[in-house]
Parts: sequence; C-alpha cells; structure tokens
Amino acid sequence: MAVRALWYRPGTLFVLDQRALPERTRVLRLTRAREVAEAIRSMTVRGAPSIGVAAAYGMALAHREGTLSPTAAAKLLRSTRPTAYDLFVGIETVRSAWEEGRDTEEAADAYRAKVVEECHRIGTAGAPLLARAHRVLTHCNAGALATVEWGTALAPIRVARQRGAHLFVWVDETRPLLQGSRLTAWELARERIPHAVIADNAAGHYLSTGRVDAVIVGADRIARNGDFANKIGTYEKAVVAKENGVPFYVAAPWTTFDARRKDGRSIPVEERGEEEVLSLAGRRVAPESSHARNPAFDVTPAKYVTAFVTPGGVVRPPAVARTLARLARER
Amino acid sequence: MAVRALWYRPGTLFVLDQRALPERTRVLRLTRAREVAEAIRSMTVRGAPSIGVAAAYGMALAHREGTLSPTAAAKLLRSTRPTAYDLFVGIETVRSAWEEGRDTEEAADAYRAKVVEECHRIGTAGAPLLARAHRVLTHCNAGALATVEWGTALAPIRVARQRGAHLFVWVDETRPLLQGSRLTAWELARERIPHAVIADNAAGHYLSTGRVDAVIVGADRIARNGDFANKIGTYEKAVVAKENGVPFYVAAPWTTFDARRKDGRSIPVEERGEEEVLSLAGRRVAPESSHARNPAFDVTPAKYVTAFVTPGGVVRPPAVARTLARLARER
Repeated sequence: MAVRALWYRPGTLFVLDQRALPERTRVLRLTRAREVAEAIRSMTVRGAPSIGVAAAYGMALAHREGTLSPTAAAKLLRSTRPTAYDLFVGIETVRSAWEEGRDTEEAADAYRAKVVEECHRIGTAGAPLLARAHRVLTHCNAGALATVEWGTALAPIRVARQRGAHLFVWVDETRPLLQGSRLTAWELARERIPHAVIADNAAGHYLSTGRVDAVIVGADRIARNGDFANKIGTYEKAVVAKENGVPFYVAAPWTTFDARRKDGRSIPVEERGEEEVLSLAGRRVAPESSHARNPAFDVTPAKYVTAFVTPGGVVRPPAVARTLARLARER
Repeated sequence: MAVRALWYRPGTLFVLDQRALPERTRVLRLTRAREVAEAIRSMTVRGAPSIGVAAAYGMALAHREGTLSPTAAAKLLRSTRPTAYDLFVGIETVRSAWEEGRDTEEAADAYRAKVVEECHRIGTAGAPLLARAHRVLTHCNAGALATVEWGTALAPIRVARQRGAHLFVWVDETRPLLQGSRLTAWELARERIPHAVIADNAAGHYLSTGRVDAVIVGADRIARNGDFANKIGTYEKAVVAKENGVPFYVAAPWTTFDARRKDGRSIPVEERGEEEVLSLAGRRVAPESSHARNPAFDVTPAKYVTAFVTPGGVVRPPAVARTLARLARER
C-alpha cells in the first residue's frame, strides 16, 4: 500500500506521526485548528507540500469550530514555521474560500488533490532525467511523507522504477532530525528500492569518487531567480555536486515557488531549538555547558541547480521567472 | 588541568576512554599489546597522533611481555586501522629500538615527547593565522585527545587565546561518532573557550553567510603533493570554504606526512561497521531492513588547502614536497 502522510474525513484530519517513524506507525486524529498548528510546529507532519495541505485542512477545521475569524485562523497556522512557502499557499487557498462563502472542506480537498497530482506529474517529468543515472543521492525526506503522496524528489525515482530503471539511492541521514535515515529509508525499504544510508559527511566522498550520477532534492521555497531554501545541508551537497560535475535537480510543485520573491537572500530561515543537536534519542551527547545553533534550512543559489523538476516539466534556472509569469497569466 | 589522552608508567599504558566522554571520565589500564590494539580498533583512543603514541607504547608492552617478535607485534598493531600514517611511524620508531637492542620504553617516551612538542610548535606557528579570525570552524576532534596534549587544529586556538585573542569556535558535531560534540566541545568547555556545536550540515550555511573567518582541521595522512586524508566530511568543508573565499588550514605534526606517497589517490580509506550510522545511543534510527555505508575518512585534494600548519611553520601546499625532502636530508 502506498504511503500517505495525512487524510481527511469531515471534521477530522488523520496525520501519520513522522516523529515516531520508523519505530512505530502511529496515526493522530486532529479535530481543531490549534492541534494542526501544533502538529506542524512539532514536525509531526513535515515537508513543505504536506504542511501546506495540513494547514489547508487546519483552516477548514477552524471554519467548522466557529470560534476564530478567517484572519485569526490564518495567523495561528502561519505562525508555526516560517520557511516553507507551501504553508502560506495552503492557508490562503482555504481562507479565500471561507471569505467568499465557499465550502472550506472542499477547498482543502481540492488543494490536496492538486498537490498530489502535481507530484505525480513531477515524477513523470523527472523520470527521464534518471534514465541513465543509476546511483542517485537525496537529502532529507522529499518523499510521500513530505508531500501527502508520491513525493517530489522521490517521485521521479518511483516513476523511473515503474518504467524498469535499476536505481540505487544514497540516503543522507540528515541531521539533526534524521529525516533521511528515519523517513526516506522507510519509504524506500517499503518499496524494496535498493538504498544505503550514509552520514551527511559522506556525501562528498561518494560525489568526488564517481559514485553518484545525480543528486535530487525537494525544496521549501523557490525564489523567482531560482535560488531556493531546503533542509540544512542542501547547499553543501549542491556546491560539491557542481564541483564534481554531477547534475543537481530540485523537484517541487508550483506551491513551493514564491513568485514575489526576487532572490534567495530574503527567504526567512527557521532556527530551531538547540536540544535537537545536543541530544540524541533522549541522551545528551555534548557537555552540559555547551550550546548549539540549529538552523533548519539553508539557501542554495540558483547557479548550483542543473534544473527544476516541476509539474510543467523540466525548467532550467534562468527560465523560472518566465515560467512563473506565464503560469500567473494562465490562472 | 590540561587534558591528556594517555600516559605511561613502566608496564602500564593509561588511556582516557574517549567512547565514554563527555558523560563519564574513565581511565583504562592496558598492560598488553593486544589490549592496546583493541583500544585503537574500538576508538577508545583515537586521533592520528594519539594512536601513533598508543601504538608506540603497545610495541614497548609487547617487548616487555616477551611472547611476540618485533615483526609480529608490529603486525598486530598495524592491523588495527589503515588510514592514519602516525600509527605506522609510531610502530616503526619503537620496532627499530627493539631490533637494535635499545630501550623500547625510552623510545616510546621519546616518540610521545616529540609529538607533544611538535603540537606545541604547531600552536605557536598557527596562532598568527588566527589573529584576525574571530570565528573559526573545526571538524572532528583535533585537540589534546587526538594528540596526547595540545592538539593540532586546537593548538593554534589555544595559543592565540593565551595571547589574548577573542575566538569563537564553530564545532561540527561530526557524525557518525560525534567527536565534535562529544570531544572537541568537552575540551573547549573545560577551558571556557566560547563555542557552539552545529550539525555537520550547518557548516555550509555559516560559511556562505559570512560567519566563519577560517577553517582549521587536523589530518590522518598527508601525501607529498599536499592531498590529505581526514575525518569523513572534511572534503565537503574544504570545497565549501574555498567556494566562499574562507581560508582552510590543516594542522599536523611531521608524523602525519607520508613522504613516500605521491598523492592522495592511493591513501587507504577505512570503512567501519554500518551500526555506527544506523544506531544512535543504542537505539536503531533506520528501518531494520536498511543498510548503511560508513567510510571513516575522505581525501581532500591539495588545491583546497590554504596552508599546512606544521612544527616547522606555515607551509603552502606546493612547498610540502620540498619541505619533506629537506627534513629527510637533515635527519
């Protein structure tokens, strides 16, 4: 059975608890906007497209509850995490429906369906890029868990496999929260896709010794010039990939593109609590008097990106602004 | 009191258990060469200069035991770890004394004293490089624990501090074994040197946003052309430092230089067990059916090195071969 990060029945958002994986498969039932906000903040649900969909349903639940105005509900859900653009798109999509008197649950359902369908199209568009790339490196989790279904970075891998490609995936473990070893490896293991987990430090070693044919990652926000934010560590992989002539692809639905942002310099980067770095599995790994810094994202300049894999096909960085302008006209 | 990784009394090598830090300060007493070999293999004692000194004492203990030939003792200790060149220098130094009928404990003592003195000279030579570098990034542990006393990368930081410099150290946690958060942070915390631990993934973020003035690391083996092996992840930091115009220094005693090796391509890279990546603090963090790869080192080409900090002063990569040839003539 395919992985689904979340699903909705009238009045209840069911969320797979991504903090508990791979040890336990636990599903939370959320009935209030406030619970959805907390699930996003705590990274129970994570990944830019997934948190956009969760927030869309959070708006629908707020409408049902009837205690918050559309503006107050949007503010509550917006305050959870600052970097992923999808969050704001998901919220605004349902807020418009609410303010215009349309059905908010239908609006959230339609938003979810659009994201899932766009991810499937990313898979179709990206699969040919991997036709001759047998060993693919990915960072963090940009799979079904991050996008409700299919994934962004993992969608082309899944489609290429269905078409008979023999792929092997290098999985960066992705400290501090280990979305690679906990979540990406879990998705790949379920589908028996060959893979190996590596410490984030080892990616450069394999890139520089000719053992990676392509890198593919997701994104949390993409600016008009192609600069993009993604999980901390992405920037290093992009620089080292370019240094070694290995193509670097970024896969994302349209909801991740922030057409109003000129470049990556002003993308807000979330800084999370130091305990995520200082402790592991509940055990302190640094001296009691030591502190840590914990930026959750970094910004990679467009010059390191070979191409974006979008629902509309493969887009080279210089064409991002033009593509977004065309999409805006078509809407 | 200054940190010491190990010390010797006739018949006993005392080793600070680096696997237990920072939680517990535990000292092991080793009286047999086989125990020393096991302590090196298990990384109870680690860091290229420290394992060279431990192995030198291991040879002296083997001589005392009287059950192994010099060749058999050397073979036992050589088989522990393949990458650090110091290991082989330490073993051969005491083997020569043994075969020539000199006192092996005196030979090991002299080897230790030379390493410690060279590290102190590295500190003196390197401190001026950090005079205007307020924020220094380091990877792994190249401190007193790795070198018996002083450190290689940390020696210039210590000397610069004694001279009144205000330094702040970014400490890469250094997965998979966390020598940064467990050991480097412990050394810095003891001496109240301001520092922050970061996930290895975050180094690029700080390098690219102008918050690192210099990078300084140790080395496990340096070839004649300046290519060098060091803890996995070093290569990525070097590439990203160069990309951002941040100086990248490599500090090492002479025992780390492998004058017979033309370049880095043939340096043996140790691959360790996958459980170091798949488990954290005894808890599995990846699905049961997933596997991992765990290269312990990577090789960084000389072109990324701004300078080597040696006991003989600061040496630019093109001058390494010349410096080593001069040293060989002087011996």
